[in-house]
Amino acid sequence: MSDERPTLAGLGEFAVIDGLVAGRTQSANVTVGPGDDAAVVVTGDGRVVVSTDMLVEGRHFRLDWSTPHDVGRKAIAQNAADIEAMGATATAFVVGFGAPGDTAAEAATALSDGMWAEAARTGAGIVGGDLVAAPQWVISVTALGDLGGRAPVLLDGARPGDVLAVVGDLGRSAAGFELWRNDVRGFDELRASHLVPELAYGQGPAAADAGATAMTDVSDGLIADLGHVARASGVGIDVSTSSLSGRHDALLAAAAATGVDPWAWVLGGGEDHALVATFPTSPPDGWRVIGTVVDGPARVLVDGAAWGGASGWQSF
Amino acid sequence: MSDERPTLAGLGEFAVIDGLVAGRTQSANVTVGPGDDAAVVVTGDGRVVVSTDMLVEGRHFRLDWSTPHDVGRKAIAQNAADIEAMGATATAFVVGFGAPGDTAAEAATALSDGMWAEAARTGAGIVGGDLVAAPQWVISVTALGDLGGRAPVLLDGARPGDVLAVVGDLGRSAAGFELWRNDVRGFDELRASHLVPELAYGQGPAAADAGATAMTDVSDGLIADLGHVARASGVGIDVSTSSLSGRHDALLAAAAATGVDPWAWVLGGGEDHALVATFPTSPPDGWRVIGTVVDGPARVLVDGAAWGGASGWQSF
Repeated sequence: MSDERPTLAGLGEFAVIDGLVAGRTQSANVTVGPGDDAAVVVTGDGRVVVSTDMLVEGRHFRLDWSTPHDVGRKAIAQNAADIEAMGATATAFVVGFGAPGDTAAEAATALSDGMWAEAARTGAGIVGGDLVAAPQWVISVTALGDLGGRAPVLLDGARPGDVLAVVGDLGRSAAGFELWRNDVRGFDELRASHLVPELAYGQGPAAADAGATAMTDVSDGLIADLGHVARASGVGIDVSTSSLSGRHDALLAAAAATGVDPWAWVLGGGEDHALVATFPTSPPDGWRVIGTVVDGPARVLVDGAAWGGASGWQSF
Repeated sequence: MSDERPTLAGLGEFAVIDGLVAGRTQSANVTVGPGDDAAVVVTGDGRVVVSTDMLVEGRHFRLDWSTPHDVGRKAIAQNAADIEAMGATATAFVVGFGAPGDTAAEAATALSDGMWAEAARTGAGIVGGDLVAAPQWVISVTALGDLGGRAPVLLDGARPGDVLAVVGDLGRSAAGFELWRNDVRGFDELRASHLVPELAYGQGPAAADAGATAMTDVSDGLIADLGHVARASGVGIDVSTSSLSGRHDALLAAAAATGVDPWAWVLGGGEDHALVATFPTSPPDGWRVIGTVVDGPARVLVDGAAWGGASGWQSF
């Protein structure tokens, strides 16, 4: 019976943590793993890249849409994307998890399994964490990364004449959200894209090696995130819809089913965590040129003109 | 009027973050600070120490007891204590902050000011973060640290014949909690101790340099945290109440006022984040010997016998 399943409160903090830690294999760069006051991670080049995100149930995920495994994958992926966007490789993650005491212990295990599954795709593991009681699920992930001797690729290096390129999907998470929200069945892949972004790990360092002058991941929406690059670099960025349209035909049927302009998804939808970067020369294999960097003032243009649609997610 | 004060939702995520980041001075070891996808921190000795904690309103703090500044100081201090407990020095913090949209922006500023004030005591700063909407305040802090070439001081190195020593307070936070909970006035210092622990930064590395064989900070309670050392090291640890009593006379009046056994606070109360360590020789200046390490089995004794009181905090 479901009410006999072990809960977090029933097992207690330390027993739950023991279960989550048991059997996990740490990377060779982890000299002290979970179980002590802190972990110790080797930093290959004398620097560490660090980024953190918080996900709140009902705001960043819904447990009636996502499995705990999905939530775990998403939480790791969105942090790993920030590390990639610097031109670095993830080396370790630490996780804070808050949940009600009556949460099934197997749900925490599934969350952890999802985190480990996604972390394994990056080549890193989870080296520490904290488990606390909270009125709803709250997950914080901090990712560490290694630049491998590279200079970090920042927001402020884009220069007029650079090409703008992207690797990964745009608009699929937003399309999936609209399908979920309107309870439109079918479109299983798009719906899955909203729950877990599919990232091509390694493309951030590849872009850095190819001479990327600026890079970020699309977390808030293409126009919004390119706005950060434009302002930091003091340049204009002109996105070409013709270069985007071929890739995004898959969104058209979903757009028709929900009555939404698919460009709102492609240009305004976040959470796919595609990487966008500017290059003085051709981008590396797998990247698609989608625009150009032009003279300032700092602004993002679509086909040479201002875009009137929603520009992206804000937290409040 | 209070309803005209700017709120997080009124200002929006990016404007709030801009306000929190403006005017802060980053340490020289921070090569990329807030504002990019991730921060970059120099790691002096090729390793990084990392620890994370999550604090939830109503569970780890109450905004009718603590000011936002207090909460910020506490959140940083308890993470810095974990770094110290490895024998390391804090080098950087990243922060996740979730709060309702109607939270006054000045409360977020005060939280951030408290974080920076405590971080400054450690010599580090806040290099990045995330700001999200949540039904109640949730704060996650991840601390990075530098071992400065030292071996980390773990839980598992205590050996029979070592002395047990402590630096910092025991039982004051628990006493303060009981005073707050029972609405007992006076005892201002003890009440303040519950809201913000006062840590002696630098004692962790000093203990490592003095040859500490095992170390932890008292976050859950002395008996509970020594239990982790005893189990990891496979030793017994015998705490001497006579060596503790002089220091803790200040608790007696508060104990009388609330009807609580003060030893429950000293031996079972957490959150003071005192450091406890074992040494083959004398501990460094400022540390007080409070017991000895004895042969296994792994257990914590008080004056040579099992202790019957509550052993410490668990999350659920």
